[in-house]
Amino acid sequence: MNADPAHRFTVRVYYEDTDFSGVVYHASYLRFMERARTEYLRELGIHQQSIFDGSHGEAFGFAVRRMEIDFMKPARMDDLLDVTTSPANIGGASIDLVQQVMRGEDLLIAARVRIACVTNGRPARLPVWVRNKMTKGLRPGP
Amino acid sequence: MNADPAHRFTVRVYYEDTDFSGVVYHASYLRFMERARTEYLRELGIHQQSIFDGSHGEAFGFAVRRMEIDFMKPARMDDLLDVTTSPANIGGASIDLVQQVMRGEDLLIAARVRIACVTNGRPARLPVWVRNKMTKGLRPGP
Amino acid sequence: MNADPAHRFTVRVYYEDTDFSGVVYHASYLRFMERARTEYLRELGIHQQSIFDGSHGEAFGFAVRRMEIDFMKPARMDDLLDVTTSPANIGGASIDLVQQVMRGEDLLIAARVRIACVTNGRPARLPVWVRNKMTKGLRPGP
Amino acid sequence: MNADPAHRFTVRVYYEDTDFSGVVYHASYLRFMERARTEYLRELGIHQQSIFDGSHGEAFGFAVRRMEIDFMKPARMDDLLDVTTSPANIGGASIDLVQQVMRGEDLLIAARVRIACVTNGRPARLPVWVRNKMTKGLRPGP
Repeated sequence: MNADPAHRFTVRVYYEDTDFSGVVYHASYLRFMERARTEYLRELGIHQQSIFDGSHGEAFGFAVRRMEIDFMKPARMDDLLDVTTSPANIGGASIDLVQQVMRGEDLLIAARVRIACVTNGRPARLPVWVRNKMTKGLRPGP
Repeated sequence: MNADPAHRFTVRVYYEDTDFSGVVYHASYLRFMERARTEYLRELGIHQQSIFDGSHGEAFGFAVRRMEIDFMKPARMDDLLDVTTSPANIGGASIDLVQQVMRGEDLLIAARVRIACVTNGRPARLPVWVRNKMTKGLRPGP
Repeated sequence: MNADPAHRFTVRVYYEDTDFSGVVYHASYLRFMERARTEYLRELGIHQQSIFDGSHGEAFGFAVRRMEIDFMKPARMDDLLDVTTSPANIGGASIDLVQQVMRGEDLLIAARVRIACVTNGRPARLPVWVRNKMTKGLRPGP
Repeated sequence: MNADPAHRFTVRVYYEDTDFSGVVYHASYLRFMERARTEYLRELGIHQQSIFDGSHGEAFGFAVRRMEIDFMKPARMDDLLDVTTSPANIGGASIDLVQQVMRGEDLLIAARVRIACVTNGRPARLPVWVRNKMTKGLRPGP
């Protein structure tokens, strides 16, 4: 588990997230985790529309480069889920995040997500102001 | 406008809701309005998973039968939207709801949605307890 | 019904399109109809990425302005659906299309969709070349 | 690369698959790969709605247990993509598949997906008839 994550975000499961098997569709968890990353960045003062527009200097964006996801238990309609996000490694051009989807004490989804910085569709170095904000939010591992 | 709707629900726009044209994909507003209906029902004490499972007596569900939607202005990434829901007519087997998506004072989407009660895939009369809860929440029109 | 539509497009129902009630989620039909409109336009020689990029002269796009949709019967996982698209009216700045989703002879969804031409996010007149292509494809009503 | 995959499936990119950054939303590739798995199973004579309903003996379903995905290059609106699917390992209760999303010769997405057999929401052994069909389709590695 992740006793003290950098960020915690609550997601409600709606009709749109489920499939005919009766539980949440597997790709819906990626949407939940992307919302949580957006809110985590927002809390750090990084607004995705603004950085994409270049309102914060040079325009850039984030792109998912790699994911490892374990789908451990299914969520269901009406469930209230917690998505935790913690930086695990901050490199020069990419960030590794650890994300978990919990229902109460139950760990449903565990993921490691690599996010890359992109300018005009090409890999770019993380702007220093982004790196600094993230590093401050980086908790030391156990 | 809808000065005093029965229910108000806030939705944040994420990556998943937008398309390459730069604004929110038109079908995403239907997802937003469905979330708002689910929360409106929840506030009335009607939990969709439970009624579907039959935890409240005979199992039933709601199905959208008809929609009229005007897409007036587009929403964008990071927008915070208000979705209002008000019952406009409560029939024996269906309910007409008026829903609006607002960004501040701007009316983006106006919709009229007919929801039918369904048991085992067939039209059914609204259970009396549902009808009673909804009628209490029905505000008289101007 | 629509005996001789301008365009016919086949859609398979997958997991992603369904919800926990066991049938297709209502907003999924809007995705199906949007795919059909894209293919209808493509058949007329109108490629959405290209017109958006301005590869065909001035950059423009299409936006859905209004929909009336009747959800008559539900589709299910693995169903093979036909989506028909026919222009019903071609105005100076918008096009009305009639779309139907069929499963064999069964009419599941009937919709009327108003599409507007948009340049830089503002309403614009339909380019003449688009109007001409569409009008040629316009079948006289009964 | 995967010179001779067990199954090849074509996907067109539509509006719904893209996001405001201009390219395909990362979770959309999971939908594409799920469609390809469904068609791969269908080709083996395994229809998801039927096995879920129990039309083929005991009711069961498949659930995604683990994914490793590399997002190498982005796809765009109007792109025509090939999704290849090959069994990499067939265990007693789960199957590992290798999936790739290609645009022509360009490898966009490479994934390894573990699918588990589930009965009444619990892990179950793969039915022998499913295992046999899959094993016949299993190509020896290089």
